[in-house]
Amino acid sequence: MDFSSKLLENAVAEVSQLPGIGKRTALRLVLHLLKQPKERTTYLTAAIQALRDDVVFCKKCHNISDSEVCEICANPKRDRSVVCVVEDLRDVMAIENTGQFQGTYHVLGGKISPMEGIGPNDLNIRSLVQKVDEGEIQELIFALSASMEGDTTNFYIYRQLQGKSVKLATIARGISVGDELEYADEVTLGRSIVNRIPFEDSLKTS
Amino acid sequence: MDFSSKLLENAVAEVSQLPGIGKRTALRLVLHLLKQPKERTTYLTAAIQALRDDVVFCKKCHNISDSEVCEICANPKRDRSVVCVVEDLRDVMAIENTGQFQGTYHVLGGKISPMEGIGPNDLNIRSLVQKVDEGEIQELIFALSASMEGDTTNFYIYRQLQGKSVKLATIARGISVGDELEYADEVTLGRSIVNRIPFEDSLKTS
Ligand SMILES: [Zn+2]
Ligand SMILES: [Zn+2]
Repeated sequence: MDFSSKLLENAVAEVSQLPGIGKRTALRLVLHLLKQPKERTTYLTAAIQALRDDVVFCKKCHNISDSEVCEICANPKRDRSVVCVVEDLRDVMAIENTGQFQGTYHVLGGKISPMEGIGPNDLNIRSLVQKVDEGEIQELIFALSASMEGDTTNFYIYRQLQGKSVKLATIARGISVGDELEYADEVTLGRSIVNRIPFEDSLKTS
Repeated sequence: MDFSSKLLENAVAEVSQLPGIGKRTALRLVLHLLKQPKERTTYLTAAIQALRDDVVFCKKCHNISDSEVCEICANPKRDRSVVCVVEDLRDVMAIENTGQFQGTYHVLGGKISPMEGIGPNDLNIRSLVQKVDEGEIQELIFALSASMEGDTTNFYIYRQLQGKSVKLATIARGISVGDELEYADEVTLGRSIVNRIPFEDSLKTS
């Protein structure tokens, strides 16, 4: 694309680095902003920048939060002995939406993916092992997506926890293999948590 | 959606106001930024803000430009007597890409659309009439999309120019009716400019 303006070219170049946004879409988005009042752009950039600069991750579960300890971890009604291990905030939102889970979460921040250069040390795994060692957790429920990366991550954590006294489960898959949690309907997802299975059983079937 | 953070909720709310971006997509985009180094977000917001704050529109053709007069208008080899009337910069880019047009442009900045509350005074129409009155233009080529809004805009300008000594043409539509100019292939679009037809003839066929 041959732009008539460097400012425009830069803006399109930056926006089109976002995943799933091509150059044409990026151009459409920035031209839209140019037609809107200036405040619209100021609000947009300020909101994104504020999130990136001031984001806080709960020091207990690593979920995105506005305070040191998130609302779920701070809630005395939530069961600290049952912890659901998820990839990111969207999975927490999806499971919370079912209203079926009264435990707490541990957000890994991703899955082990050699293809994308994400190793165990890039994820919140060490703090999970540490929490288990502290003895409060009785059961971990793996709720990662049923993909090769999800299975690898589950298995890596399973190995780290061998010999420790914690029950390991995975959510029951009423959900078809390969589906993302966040797109699952609430009933199916809620049931899959209630009907969770021991982790070692899941190794036999896959 | 029930967010665990106000900062996150705000960012998603702002991003999802962009056209064609839903809440889920907005959430995916901001979570992506959180996984990237902070600089990525700074570059992104700075580029968008700089464009919005410092954008310059060519004082001759109203195209987005880095200087008072754009490169096309400033080029002595371009024919000022033939002016192509387009909706926005994407159409200029599409036509420039064909390499078939040696004239100059006039960018309206949109189309007349009562539905979207865009009237003639919101567009760069008065300055077009003024340019015609100044006498340098011998031919205007309408290259708006073949939609009701495009036809309305063409017709409005046609009425404004009645009795003035300027030849009016529309680009030949080898391109199927309803297609956007920016998606047309270069050969078809180039040919449609070369084979333009007198504007009054186009009124008879539609
Ligand atoms: Zn927490
Ligand atoms: Zn110009």
